[in-house]
Amino acid sequence: MYPKSLKNLIESFKFMPGVGEKTAERMAFSVIELDDEKVDFFSNSIIEIKKKLRRCTLCNSLTESELCDICSNKLRDESVLCVVEDPKSVILFERLGIFNGFYHVLNGLISPLDGINPEDIELDRLIDRIRNGNFKEIILAFKPSIEGETTSLYIKKIIDDLNVSVTKIASGVPMGADMEYIDAITLERALSDRKNVE
Amino acid sequence: MYPKSLKNLIESFKFMPGVGEKTAERMAFSVIELDDEKVDFFSNSIIEIKKKLRRCTLCNSLTESELCDICSNKLRDESVLCVVEDPKSVILFERLGIFNGFYHVLNGLISPLDGINPEDIELDRLIDRIRNGNFKEIILAFKPSIEGETTSLYIKKIIDDLNVSVTKIASGVPMGADMEYIDAITLERALSDRKNVE
Repeated sequence: MYPKSLKNLIESFKFMPGVGEKTAERMAFSVIELDDEKVDFFSNSIIEIKKKLRRCTLCNSLTESELCDICSNKLRDESVLCVVEDPKSVILFERLGIFNGFYHVLNGLISPLDGINPEDIELDRLIDRIRNGNFKEIILAFKPSIEGETTSLYIKKIIDDLNVSVTKIASGVPMGADMEYIDAITLERALSDRKNVE
Repeated sequence: MYPKSLKNLIESFKFMPGVGEKTAERMAFSVIELDDEKVDFFSNSIIEIKKKLRRCTLCNSLTESELCDICSNKLRDESVLCVVEDPKSVILFERLGIFNGFYHVLNGLISPLDGINPEDIELDRLIDRIRNGNFKEIILAFKPSIEGETTSLYIKKIIDDLNVSVTKIASGVPMGADMEYIDAITLERALSDRKNVE
């Protein structure tokens, strides 16, 4: 029904998460309306991302160089390492602008049910980095979930013999949330992790 | 904060309608995860759409040839012409599979407030086509709106001297709609256009 080139573009947009037939159609039609310059920019961006973007050899985050901007920054605090589950988390923390240590990006979280084992997320690279580094604190910043817990416990166990404190980000009721919409597990966690009012 | 290639791709996705920073980020990250074959397919689709896709010289719909598939189909009913406001409407009607006439795609609708006049939507091409053709009925299939009404009345007036009936698609309460959520103008229209129960 659609001309072939239009059909192909619609199919391409459907590769994106959460994009179904209707949204893909709307997007493809909007590409037709774009001026030539923007279309070139768009197609080039896609080509470039595969050509230029790679993983930082040290922290595994996304970069266009051998080392990412953070790993090559001599001014950051060498005593703290924040371990995250994906490159996007690095951006989220950097946006806050309050963390000045280094990062390490795993390729996901341990999930035995999905067949994802420690070697699949290259945990040994993290362990080696910690063993060879001078970190005083390792912050585990995974999403609160069974997979996050499993990965945290696994890392803690392996580096337990080192003189490094292992912490994890707090889990609880998010700011501004309506209490009635908080799920039971979160509420339970928030209660058991209660703090003194200071 | 993002590597340049990733930033460019995020900007590109923001060209799409309804895509803001967060969605664009999510989409750009998903492109990184795609295999090379899909990434090539995606970038090629965008390049091809500007290279191959053009307007049908007769009906102004999208095609990769001189004439679109519908205009070059000898089996369709030459006595009915359905006038629509954009190429997407052609697809919507074709999907229904109940209309077997020809189409004519305008470049939008007349909207004096937005400075869109009859010449801006190439209405003369439609008028010429009707004058030189053997159509018995012209169906106006625009969205119910001031612009749709204006365009319909304008076309009707210009071809009033021809022996062609001019109809428009029905407007009213959509199937399955809750009456309480129908706006006043739609309800008013549905009441005044009421039909005998047969």
